[in-house]
Amino acid sequence: MSRKGILTIISGFSGVGKGTLVNNLMNMYDNYALSISATTRNKREGEVDKVNYFFMTKEEFESKIENNEFLEYANYVGNYYGTPKAYVEEMLNEGKDVLLEIEIQGAMKVKEIMKDALLIFVMPPSAKVLKDRLVGRGTETKEVIDKRLLRAIEESEGIENYDYILVNDNLDESTKRLHDIINVQHDASSRNYKFINVIREDIKNFSEGD
Amino acid sequence: MSRKGILTIISGFSGVGKGTLVNNLMNMYDNYALSISATTRNKREGEVDKVNYFFMTKEEFESKIENNEFLEYANYVGNYYGTPKAYVEEMLNEGKDVLLEIEIQGAMKVKEIMKDALLIFVMPPSAKVLKDRLVGRGTETKEVIDKRLLRAIEESEGIENYDYILVNDNLDESTKRLHDIINVQHDASSRNYKFINVIREDIKNFSEGD
Repeated sequence: MSRKGILTIISGFSGVGKGTLVNNLMNMYDNYALSISATTRNKREGEVDKVNYFFMTKEEFESKIENNEFLEYANYVGNYYGTPKAYVEEMLNEGKDVLLEIEIQGAMKVKEIMKDALLIFVMPPSAKVLKDRLVGRGTETKEVIDKRLLRAIEESEGIENYDYILVNDNLDESTKRLHDIINVQHDASSRNYKFINVIREDIKNFSEGD
Repeated sequence: MSRKGILTIISGFSGVGKGTLVNNLMNMYDNYALSISATTRNKREGEVDKVNYFFMTKEEFESKIENNEFLEYANYVGNYYGTPKAYVEEMLNEGKDVLLEIEIQGAMKVKEIMKDALLIFVMPPSAKVLKDRLVGRGTETKEVIDKRLLRAIEESEGIENYDYILVNDNLDESTKRLHDIINVQHDASSRNYKFINVIREDIKNFSEGD
């Protein structure tokens, strides 16, 4: 069973610890690759092209939009951000399980193109834990906190579109669980039609007097 | 997250080692329960009622058929065999993951009633391995072997109806893999609507000034 990688989209509430989980997953296990975003914003000190981002000009970015080279893209405060399809597919073909941390609207766009993407939504153990994280250390204004809570309500609307939820209560345990969820998908029969057919044809050949 | 058990249906080619896998799973991990079949055949020496089978008369069995008390049933050489719904549901409600080893026609019937059942098909690592097992130690007649091969061809037709395939190459590794496949399903968002809704409602309540 030579196996293609699985594209896993990871979303979740702001402040729930998605980034830490993804980094921990990369450290604890081999076989994962992070999707690298493209952007037209300026490179900041310490950032490396093709590591942190694929940095490109507005013209380059827009020409790639026209050529359908993005799984999704968006424009935030005058800069483009997007997920280049080619890099993701290259990693998948190498057998890497590719991780894409992205918010829900982007996730739905990617799923339309990559129909066998696996969607995981990271949850807090309770709303109270989420609230404590959003409220922070009491130094935020009511306005900021209300905005964060509204954002969380919005984020919560689409959870049922995800295949799995992952409760982030203990970093290492949740990371292992994230790994298990992704890893067992390699055994989904929908990802093994080729292997199933080979076995089936081989048995038929035996039966015909091999 | 109080959790209900998952009904896992395990099918696979004859001789592929399903029974050994299931027994090993029961020994290696807690939280599993085996579905117990009902039958009208006579109790054999050493068999215990409600452990090996629910033994019952033809009349009792047929009255249960009429009352839709079976997830599936069939008649082999004059005796009924079936899967009583009540026992499976009792175990599931206790939070046990229930294992049901059954062939494909029965599996499809159970899936119709228990729509969130998990279906796993056990595969040999290669058709050659399966053939060697079916052919045995060279003591079988060509007729017996041909019959087994034909059976295997029939069994192979419905594999795509299963959610996962499990390659049985190494007993302990495959058992662990079987456990992982079942275990992560507890995180499927479709099995966590209640938890998702609680979190969602709690966040909304916070936002309304809690």
